[in-house]
Amino acid sequence: MAPSERSNRRNGGLVLLDGASARAVGTVWLVGAGPGDPELLTLKALKVLQGADVVVHDGLVSAEILDLAPAAAQRISVAKRKSRHAYPQDEINRMLVAFALQGLKVVRLKGGDPFIFGRGGEELEACRAAGVACVVVPGVTAALAAGAGAGAPLTHRGVAQAVTFVTGHAARDGEPDLDWESLARPNQTVVIYMGVSTAAGIARRLIEAGRSPATPALIVENASRTDERRIVTVLADLAEAAAPVSGPALLIVGEAMALALAGEPWQTTQIEARAVELGGK
Amino acid sequence: MAPSERSNRRNGGLVLLDGASARAVGTVWLVGAGPGDPELLTLKALKVLQGADVVVHDGLVSAEILDLAPAAAQRISVAKRKSRHAYPQDEINRMLVAFALQGLKVVRLKGGDPFIFGRGGEELEACRAAGVACVVVPGVTAALAAGAGAGAPLTHRGVAQAVTFVTGHAARDGEPDLDWESLARPNQTVVIYMGVSTAAGIARRLIEAGRSPATPALIVENASRTDERRIVTVLADLAEAAAPVSGPALLIVGEAMALALAGEPWQTTQIEARAVELGGK
Repeated sequence: MAPSERSNRRNGGLVLLDGASARAVGTVWLVGAGPGDPELLTLKALKVLQGADVVVHDGLVSAEILDLAPAAAQRISVAKRKSRHAYPQDEINRMLVAFALQGLKVVRLKGGDPFIFGRGGEELEACRAAGVACVVVPGVTAALAAGAGAGAPLTHRGVAQAVTFVTGHAARDGEPDLDWESLARPNQTVVIYMGVSTAAGIARRLIEAGRSPATPALIVENASRTDERRIVTVLADLAEAAAPVSGPALLIVGEAMALALAGEPWQTTQIEARAVELGGK
Repeated sequence: MAPSERSNRRNGGLVLLDGASARAVGTVWLVGAGPGDPELLTLKALKVLQGADVVVHDGLVSAEILDLAPAAAQRISVAKRKSRHAYPQDEINRMLVAFALQGLKVVRLKGGDPFIFGRGGEELEACRAAGVACVVVPGVTAALAAGAGAGAPLTHRGVAQAVTFVTGHAARDGEPDLDWESLARPNQTVVIYMGVSTAAGIARRLIEAGRSPATPALIVENASRTDERRIVTVLADLAEAAAPVSGPALLIVGEAMALALAGEPWQTTQIEARAVELGGK
């Protein structure tokens, strides 16, 4: 039984709004819009979006993707990137539940996958608490698109036996609160979401914890979008390389990033020389 | 410049096959077919598949998805699950390159994402070595579908600040060679691909390394398929819970799995009681 069926059964599929009329409770769909390229939407995401009454989206979802919803669907932007007009999470939760209780088909459209640093879990919990059915449609998270675009596998035989996704959001002192010792072990790929502004601290802590300064690193800005930019570098130079990046970007650190193609072929050669200089292979 | 453009430029877009005729070199597309549900294909994967001359696929890709390729396209199964008729990786690499050199549009179709335990990196390297253009289309990796289906976020505020993907493939002594100390830290989600047969060793090593036996765990068999089965359990009982699983499955261990919905609601309640018994919350 799908979660939606179960939840609908729990509340009987109907809720009385007033004494005179009954309206079916709507469903909240937490939908991953993928990394940016509209072609990286799933068929399911497209179908759900095409049936939406209301689309609650964050700023990373492109106009091209929003245009796939019906013209009559209400569109609400709740988290404009780098804008002060972002809604607090509680308010987004309340909004989703309120629309569903009005009988609407609510699509909460998120960049990437709803459950990878998308706060989808909090929205799901709010729906459950309110007895509103919530169905999750997974999406291609940005890390997968970044690796694909650069031709750099996140796992790779012999050099990347594990891959870890973390966020670079600063917890305190301008540095994220991460398990540096674990992330510093060799032969694994570390993907840092939202880490551009804390890149200097991340690189320093990883190196202090023992990760080689010559470890290949890749920065991908606007992964899968037409303005995607890739920078190949090494861990020691990560902060400097990230300095000109202004859009949403991922930092990827790991031996397998040696396979990454930069925007320009000469750059890859330069990086190989730098890695040798730093004692890598 | 896209990798395909660069590679085509490098080999001039043409290769002489014999003295009399020239044929354009084909491209190898490493395509993620997603976790199983055909609706979890991306629009790009569908488009590429519909243009294929030859589809080289592994056993996890369903007939429904293979049917989306043109009727005239050649279909080659190279890794039948649990069959002895699997091709060695080297042979797959040679096959992809050989088809491309014949001028064909080759789609290497893989379950999930090509770069998450899909050995896509090796195929990409083989193409690069042969001067054949290789384009990677990311896909929804099984972990994302498993979390979505169960309503269990892989990252979750306060309880899952990181998520790590590893494989349960045994390296020696019937146990995978993993960084148990890192994986045993609390407040992170550990996803184990192909770990059913080594579940007992995995659970034992995680507990020995300090992860609480009461840590919530989720097993998802055939994620996103019509025969998906979910089992919610705790780390201490992981091996027992995995015993009846015969299809491809993921083991997911982490505090956020407390949000997972099992196949039947009574099961979730039972697991909560067991976690309390083991000293969890």
